[in-house]
Amino acid sequence: MKVAVMGYGTVGSGVVEVIDSHNDVIKKRTGGEALEVAHILDLRDFPDDSHAALFTKDFNDILNDSEVKVVAETMGGVEPAFTFTMQLLEAGKSVVTSNKELVAQKGLKLLEAAEKSGANYLFEASVGGGIPIIRPMSQCLAANNIEGVAGILNGTTNFILTKMIEEGMDFDDALKLAQDNGYAEKDPTADIEGFDACRKVCILASLAFGKHVYPNQVQTEGITNITLEDVAYISSVKGVIKLLGQIKYISDDKIAAFVSPAVVQHGSQLASVNDVFNAILVRGDAVGDVCFYGPGAGKLPTASAVVADMVDAAKHIFRKKIFGWGAGFEGYVVDYKDTIEMPFYVRAKAPTNKVQSAFGEVKFLSRIGQPSNEVAFITDKMTENQLRDKLTNIDVINIIKVTSY
Amino acid sequence: MKVAVMGYGTVGSGVVEVIDSHNDVIKKRTGGEALEVAHILDLRDFPDDSHAALFTKDFNDILNDSEVKVVAETMGGVEPAFTFTMQLLEAGKSVVTSNKELVAQKGLKLLEAAEKSGANYLFEASVGGGIPIIRPMSQCLAANNIEGVAGILNGTTNFILTKMIEEGMDFDDALKLAQDNGYAEKDPTADIEGFDACRKVCILASLAFGKHVYPNQVQTEGITNITLEDVAYISSVKGVIKLLGQIKYISDDKIAAFVSPAVVQHGSQLASVNDVFNAILVRGDAVGDVCFYGPGAGKLPTASAVVADMVDAAKHIFRKKIFGWGAGFEGYVVDYKDTIEMPFYVRAKAPTNKVQSAFGEVKFLSRIGQPSNEVAFITDKMTENQLRDKLTNIDVINIIKVTSY
Repeated sequence: MKVAVMGYGTVGSGVVEVIDSHNDVIKKRTGGEALEVAHILDLRDFPDDSHAALFTKDFNDILNDSEVKVVAETMGGVEPAFTFTMQLLEAGKSVVTSNKELVAQKGLKLLEAAEKSGANYLFEASVGGGIPIIRPMSQCLAANNIEGVAGILNGTTNFILTKMIEEGMDFDDALKLAQDNGYAEKDPTADIEGFDACRKVCILASLAFGKHVYPNQVQTEGITNITLEDVAYISSVKGVIKLLGQIKYISDDKIAAFVSPAVVQHGSQLASVNDVFNAILVRGDAVGDVCFYGPGAGKLPTASAVVADMVDAAKHIFRKKIFGWGAGFEGYVVDYKDTIEMPFYVRAKAPTNKVQSAFGEVKFLSRIGQPSNEVAFITDKMTENQLRDKLTNIDVINIIKVTSY
Repeated sequence: MKVAVMGYGTVGSGVVEVIDSHNDVIKKRTGGEALEVAHILDLRDFPDDSHAALFTKDFNDILNDSEVKVVAETMGGVEPAFTFTMQLLEAGKSVVTSNKELVAQKGLKLLEAAEKSGANYLFEASVGGGIPIIRPMSQCLAANNIEGVAGILNGTTNFILTKMIEEGMDFDDALKLAQDNGYAEKDPTADIEGFDACRKVCILASLAFGKHVYPNQVQTEGITNITLEDVAYISSVKGVIKLLGQIKYISDDKIAAFVSPAVVQHGSQLASVNDVFNAILVRGDAVGDVCFYGPGAGKLPTASAVVADMVDAAKHIFRKKIFGWGAGFEGYVVDYKDTIEMPFYVRAKAPTNKVQSAFGEVKFLSRIGQPSNEVAFITDKMTENQLRDKLTNIDVINIIKVTSY
């Protein structure tokens, strides 16, 4: 079957490579049919590439090739990826993508277009890179009420936090190392401010609870405020700091969804997820906790997820996959700060008795080199707004959520 | 849609309970159709059960009910489950099961029967209880050459080993605690001798590499030889002992598949899998390592996997799922002892110089209370037969494989 690839960056070139090198295994899964890359769309020139003859700068070469039934969109960004994808789906071609920004912003519209024309829009690679998560989650969903989802969804920040925790490297050095290793972009904002994780939370929340959640509905906090002092205090109570995307079911018309650093206790499957790896934990009322772990990014892992979706689309050329992903509404995602109760880690410049008079008995933490006017403690469960009230007269240095996953 | 349940033990009664309590979510996944339990087959009487009216002792009540399209087989054992399943599949009814013994022994025959009649035979719940693994593995397979699979596949033995490692409980006490908690049977042989894990290895190997592997082809060693002394030595090098099922690709006509205790290093995703939890790690050439974690047994987790398969069967009533699971042959599963190289942990009564003259430089381990005539060490990579040769003149107490997962 003829296929096309749009965007020949890291993932797109990986897709072509995986198709070239894995057609034997692909044929086994399609029942005998190989995938054949017929067009590669990119505005750049690749004169020395072994696929040089396949390149085009004109999207219409793909749109108008009636033999092309499945297209991989690995361009990234909303435009022109959205316009291209929409036209392909309307023309009845299936599109698979690793583009989390597009799925998070426009997933509902694209799924509706696919529904209408009978094509498929698949996006396994948009969350968790090579980790199978979209289908396993649908599977868990079939006989469970999902209570919550928590994920380490960004490899760059997990790499930085791992270096801080395991090697005592400070944030700036760890970020620089991530950049030197190619894990972080020159402008690392989307990673370290949590925007990338936010997009993945949108996709997971939309799938888990069937209503589109947009990035601007997800309160998002990055890791730039995390210091080695926080790491040390939390390590003293056998915990680690992870950047988590969390989604919680409240009612059929209400969920909470947010991204923030969070304290995870040793023993949790999320605590041992290190370096650039990702993991997604799904909590169901019948199954309990299941967790999916693997490489969250990288050329070949992500490409292999894209190609697996291409194989799936090729097998289901006349059959729609149903994700049960409908429209959301104003107020569907609540302000978690007012709703979700949890314990918090607080570091402050304050005497212990002032803390005790505000909070009653709390668990105080300690670290080597702790200044005499600094305290750190873990509170009882409460909402973040209740916490802020109690902290009114306390000189807070940092606050980190403590998760139950 | 009318369905039936055969076997009203722990899992079977869980299936009925999950269907009763989750029809809202089931309807979302089937596109509106609820599952309705029409018959429950069991030879025992359940006069006080709220489903008393549905019970039958006559299998023909299910076979001859033309409205029943999907049947859950949760009886366990090979017979009469095999005969019943075969007749149902031949009659065009789909069967889903948690019965690992039956799938491991007769999976190929049953899949062939399903293939012939256009029904589905699904068995997600037979490996890893509630963990989605069968479908995610198919998905990984679509664009990866699988290099190996390693799994903690038995909750009972993992519970026992966890108690030995974390609480210094000896084997007998840990086994008794597992029995008191209902995790181990009165006759715990199938668990502690590795037979249960062996069946699951057969299923995973058959799926991963497309040829049926039978239990008698899988060399299987249980955990009864593991002592607290071994736990202590291995703990000194940041390792833990787990009962692992391991499958390794050698060539398209050769694999290795075996069950045994194995040393897993801290930092591996398998090392932090504790208590009755299971995890399966799949290593693909493109994706790298992905790992699936969750409850490996238990009434509701396993039942939720059975019901998810029922939903899937109900959705695909006219469409076969293809697993690509064909016949194996003599010699397909090699003797790993002659083939697979790995490091070994050895504990022996021997002077260190005797060990060094047999092995050259090795890594010696130590423990508190170590007798002066006892040594423990980790070897270089070699086959088990090469190891045994070198140990000819050494008084060995225990040998444990060291895994690379």
